[in-house]
Amino acid sequence: MEALKEKIRRQGRVIGDEILKVDSFLNHQVDVPFLMEIGQAFAQRFAGERVDRILTAETSGIAIAVLAAPAFHNVPVVFAKKTASRNMDLTYYESRSKSYTRGQSGSLRVSKAYLPAGERVLILDDFLAEGNALLALADMVKQAGSTLVGAGIVIEKAFQPGGQKVRDAGIRLESLVRIQAMEHGEVVFQ
Amino acid sequence: MEALKEKIRRQGRVIGDEILKVDSFLNHQVDVPFLMEIGQAFAQRFAGERVDRILTAETSGIAIAVLAAPAFHNVPVVFAKKTASRNMDLTYYESRSKSYTRGQSGSLRVSKAYLPAGERVLILDDFLAEGNALLALADMVKQAGSTLVGAGIVIEKAFQPGGQKVRDAGIRLESLVRIQAMEHGEVVFQ
Repeated sequence: MEALKEKIRRQGRVIGDEILKVDSFLNHQVDVPFLMEIGQAFAQRFAGERVDRILTAETSGIAIAVLAAPAFHNVPVVFAKKTASRNMDLTYYESRSKSYTRGQSGSLRVSKAYLPAGERVLILDDFLAEGNALLALADMVKQAGSTLVGAGIVIEKAFQPGGQKVRDAGIRLESLVRIQAMEHGEVVFQ
Repeated sequence: MEALKEKIRRQGRVIGDEILKVDSFLNHQVDVPFLMEIGQAFAQRFAGERVDRILTAETSGIAIAVLAAPAFHNVPVVFAKKTASRNMDLTYYESRSKSYTRGQSGSLRVSKAYLPAGERVLILDDFLAEGNALLALADMVKQAGSTLVGAGIVIEKAFQPGGQKVRDAGIRLESLVRIQAMEHGEVVFQ
């Protein structure tokens, strides 16, 4: 997606050789019309596939998923939660995950009511690095007895092992941009 | 907002006499077209006011704020963060808050770059109960040297002190529905 590469070149900031900050438009400040374009790009990638539900993980997946929904006939969106709230259902799917940016291990949870069996589910998320969050989401789709259509990722860090792990798991992966390396403060796209 | 009252009557679940679960459409599963209607309702309440930016708090404010943006000429949305990430700017506004549903005290943070001075900022959030998150957001708008247009709340629990605290602070408060009480599993609207 050329517009996304251009946005990353203009607004992204590279920290060290692993961290790309895109918080001016993706995960702190949100550029709503741009994320709607991203949603349309995902819809083009998965054109011809029936999608009944979009699944993502809090926090940074939420804006991406809800702003993509209009391009997917406004199907329901559900975001997996990282912490148990007193408002949460007692019956939920759970899968262990490890957040790359926070360096913590934790669980993702989705109430069973919002991940019914027999659906075709599309996962959307902002980054793919180690792949742990995505594999945890995929595991919950399987637990639910639904079919995973695939995963749409805004930015894949192709120099980290997540993409290979996800493809090896037989998951259709559509990354809008793939970053080969981050060198001397610059992003090198694949 | 009658459609919201009806949605709460049909889909809301009352737990005890203080908790209202609306996770079928608002804060776990997201009903995107309905949240866009909510965004339009906020735009009607604040019609005639210039809004340069929408501010909310993670997690449950994000979907509401980004889906309201189209009704506010797609202004930038920024969501305050609850935890310090290694990706976060070192220069941020911070204000202490206490989450009602999690029973924990914590800080909200916004990078200074995404809360510039001299703007007119609208706060949007899902619930108003104790008012702490909203007052923390308002405090950061003040720290930034911007003007707070007001706060749009989806559901105000009018039997808790937040609404009064916010109005006493001189903040214009527009709640789409106000709940007077929750009795015997039923919601009583004001």
